[in-house]
Amino acid sequence: MRSTEDLIKRFNSGDRTALSRIITLVENREDGYSDILDCIFPKTGKAYRIGVTGPPGAGKSTLVSSLVQTQRSKQMKVGVIAVDPTSPFTGGALLGDRIRMQDIGCDPGVFVRSMATRGSVGGLAEAAGDVADVMDAFGYDVVITETVGVGQCELDIAQTCYTTVVVIVPESGDSVQAMKAGLMEIADIIVINKSDREGADKIAMETLAMMELRGRRPGAGDGPGEDGAGETCDEVWHLPVVKTIASRGTGIPELYEAIEKHREFLVRSGLLERHRKSNVEATIRGIVESELHKKVWSSGSLEKLEGLVKEVLEGRKTPRQASGEILSTIGGV
Amino acid sequence: MRSTEDLIKRFNSGDRTALSRIITLVENREDGYSDILDCIFPKTGKAYRIGVTGPPGAGKSTLVSSLVQTQRSKQMKVGVIAVDPTSPFTGGALLGDRIRMQDIGCDPGVFVRSMATRGSVGGLAEAAGDVADVMDAFGYDVVITETVGVGQCELDIAQTCYTTVVVIVPESGDSVQAMKAGLMEIADIIVINKSDREGADKIAMETLAMMELRGRRPGAGDGPGEDGAGETCDEVWHLPVVKTIASRGTGIPELYEAIEKHREFLVRSGLLERHRKSNVEATIRGIVESELHKKVWSSGSLEKLEGLVKEVLEGRKTPRQASGEILSTIGGV
Repeated sequence: MRSTEDLIKRFNSGDRTALSRIITLVENREDGYSDILDCIFPKTGKAYRIGVTGPPGAGKSTLVSSLVQTQRSKQMKVGVIAVDPTSPFTGGALLGDRIRMQDIGCDPGVFVRSMATRGSVGGLAEAAGDVADVMDAFGYDVVITETVGVGQCELDIAQTCYTTVVVIVPESGDSVQAMKAGLMEIADIIVINKSDREGADKIAMETLAMMELRGRRPGAGDGPGEDGAGETCDEVWHLPVVKTIASRGTGIPELYEAIEKHREFLVRSGLLERHRKSNVEATIRGIVESELHKKVWSSGSLEKLEGLVKEVLEGRKTPRQASGEILSTIGGV
Repeated sequence: MRSTEDLIKRFNSGDRTALSRIITLVENREDGYSDILDCIFPKTGKAYRIGVTGPPGAGKSTLVSSLVQTQRSKQMKVGVIAVDPTSPFTGGALLGDRIRMQDIGCDPGVFVRSMATRGSVGGLAEAAGDVADVMDAFGYDVVITETVGVGQCELDIAQTCYTTVVVIVPESGDSVQAMKAGLMEIADIIVINKSDREGADKIAMETLAMMELRGRRPGAGDGPGEDGAGETCDEVWHLPVVKTIASRGTGIPELYEAIEKHREFLVRSGLLERHRKSNVEATIRGIVESELHKKVWSSGSLEKLEGLVKEVLEGRKTPRQASGEILSTIGGV
């Protein structure tokens, strides 16, 4: 039997099988996963984290695939996490797309991992962040997380990324929908993909106008800005709108440049540092909350809960009294 | 100064101003809100809870407005909670719609309350459930919660409703989008609104076919069915598809009937009882978790966190060690 120590040793020596095994452990929250995360944590903090999100059908995976090829040409090692259920990475799309993915999948400088959206959505965002940590610790220079932009999960994942790219297509209404879903607020770069279609220029202008109207604050979308009271940033990030045709590689060098410019902006302004701090804080908070959760819902409290629900339904206790009894079982709290 | 006791006394005597005040207290999580909820809890459990959700522009509010008028004609008292940012209830739509809302707004047997989608989405679902409890305790026979179907929040809210109505329009792709967003899985009744538009019959058939393909389990969408191991239900709910033109009242009596039939089905099959149990359980769990959260992040632990984040960033501690120090501050856990 291979021990955890052996697994980590192989991981540290660059064994991709060990990487894959650890990601599985972490994704499925198997026994000991948090010890492993804790153990490899000191090696994290080097990878640049990019989030790519947008509505289904915007061509996110093709875009990511092209972007990865550009990054590879600059000798960057890239990890990709696909949390998008409509993504060809996760097997949901056309054969042509899947073959294109394989182009990058065979390159040893690239590691692609898809994550199922099963189970709790909140948990998924956390797990995706942990998987990004694993890829980071393994030595990837860049970790790209692709999500389909329909809910809270995407916003949570975007929070852990340094640069968030929101991809839309020229179809009417797409940008409005993206706005409503809160995507525009988290965008650092907007991509109008499939920009050979009618309406691309119009949507690019509309998007810029919308952003102007909303009066983006400096560094908005660059992390939990509100709490950084002590840090000021005079420089403003002017949200770029990049037009691409990902399937032909058109506009991809421009997207690559926009990401690099945003990275430099974050470094210069101190926002990258703030980002890393808030990621670490979220990690600590997450462990605290999950430990508390485990503690309170283990032992006899779950059986106790059943009886308490009955008493509340019969009007013999209020929910607060019932909660008090559960809290009292764990002593100190 | 009016005390909480006075407020509750007025609430219990049917004072709508007190109802409104308590809803505000609960929505904003003002001091003492949970005591009030606990105090009025024994009066809850009588209102039938209906969720109405669907993509923006599906005409949900007009539908709710018409449905309420039908329910009023049957002498039902109705509370409406609008959590939809695109809803005319919340002030986002055309004047015509808003006037229509006012028709029901002036009726003393109806109470309409809109809730902002500000702040945490998870918290919003919880707050909406609490507001439904308040309306229930006040004596409304029915509480309808209208949400725009784009994310986890809607799924969470639907979980607390007995009958969930998913509204789509004949526009192509709408049902596919609704499916992707997980809406179809929570639907007990599907409404094709604006069914005078082209494609209504086609989408109705497609929707039925999709549902057949997915092989809905008995009682699916009727609550957290997986845990009811001890209860069996031989009866199957055949998901009805109702075609409406809400702006003209067409199909609304049929929708009313479908809801009543679903209610009878839930009562007969014991699923309504199971639903109520799981709502109470969720309430107790919610209080426990929020008390724990308050406990662990109060006192000195937040200041402590800042120092710990620094130590982790400098590689002097792992996140788990940092978490351990925070957990140790609250003793017993």
